[in-house]
Amino acid sequence: MKLYDAAASGNCHKVRMMLSMLGIEHEVVPMNLPGMDQKTPQHLARNPLGTVPVLEDGDLTIYDSQAILVYLAGKYGNESWLPADPADQAAVQQWLSFAVNELWNGPAIARAKLRFNRDVDLPRAQALAADVLTIMDDRLTGRDWLALDHPTIADIACYPYSALSEEGEITLAPYKALGAWFKRIEALPGYVAMPGLGA
Amino acid sequence: MKLYDAAASGNCHKVRMMLSMLGIEHEVVPMNLPGMDQKTPQHLARNPLGTVPVLEDGDLTIYDSQAILVYLAGKYGNESWLPADPADQAAVQQWLSFAVNELWNGPAIARAKLRFNRDVDLPRAQALAADVLTIMDDRLTGRDWLALDHPTIADIACYPYSALSEEGEITLAPYKALGAWFKRIEALPGYVAMPGLGA
Repeated sequence: MKLYDAAASGNCHKVRMMLSMLGIEHEVVPMNLPGMDQKTPQHLARNPLGTVPVLEDGDLTIYDSQAILVYLAGKYGNESWLPADPADQAAVQQWLSFAVNELWNGPAIARAKLRFNRDVDLPRAQALAADVLTIMDDRLTGRDWLALDHPTIADIACYPYSALSEEGEITLAPYKALGAWFKRIEALPGYVAMPGLGA
Repeated sequence: MKLYDAAASGNCHKVRMMLSMLGIEHEVVPMNLPGMDQKTPQHLARNPLGTVPVLEDGDLTIYDSQAILVYLAGKYGNESWLPADPADQAAVQQWLSFAVNELWNGPAIARAKLRFNRDVDLPRAQALAADVLTIMDDRLTGRDWLALDHPTIADIACYPYSALSEEGEITLAPYKALGAWFKRIEALPGYVAMPGLGA
């Protein structure tokens, strides 16, 4: 199995965490994003969006970090990471969508401006981030995990960009339940850190 | 079953299509979005994001149109709408994520500006939309459906906001394979139209 990866990418970190938590041997192919490795014809053939992560498992190629989590959980995990029950799957999907939309357009975009000078609307992203973190904090008040009563890929998908918020100059101090959830994730067997996370 | 719905919402239309295609009896609760029905305390208790659609099925409440599709397909559909195989599920998830991020931030946001005067960056959304529609058109060149060799919830999730592109002043004329896919979707048993779609 091969992961096309960038060390500073929160989306890649979701996959690095899942691979480690499931104990899956794999090769990492580092991609130089400022050098536009992700926009080469070879990489666009793997992923027309021109992004990382991309996972190759034998003949199969998967892009989108949420899709990769779905695959790894279903193929190599046990059912607790992504249950088959339709109501449970929907509960997980709500937070996968939240990772793709709200966490991306809020804290991840704010970080992309301040760390990578991406051309985005920083005040808008920071304002959205405050709403997004409040929703997560409210959800996690009185419960341990986002979707179900145990860790799922929803938690993995939502962790990196919320926990990296301060790199987008969004303070995490008000969000006590969120902070406790970060610590629960960081205590899971196989957790791996990245710069800015889990120090 | 109860659907909190807005007639002009493409996200709601995904759910209306799926309910109709699966032949599920349900009650529609129309929400007045300009009147902020979606931000009342009652609705925020159903969905902290303050959006529609929301589905209630007995004691279960689900928000996020993708999550509702996952639920309906798993609970009331047959396996063809959302297969259990991990590779197939990941293929579907790639396009659910695409519906949430690329189709939302591109054509849906452009339409939101021009139809509902939402405060967004129209030129940016229109430029992204052209990339997004090209990716879909390329994908559908030589194949009938987005994720697998038959219709899945990926097709339902990606249809409304791509097919409504011209309401965001994005021309669909160049995208021939996409246009043929619109017609295939509109020919599915149980398809329902909405203003601007399937006329």
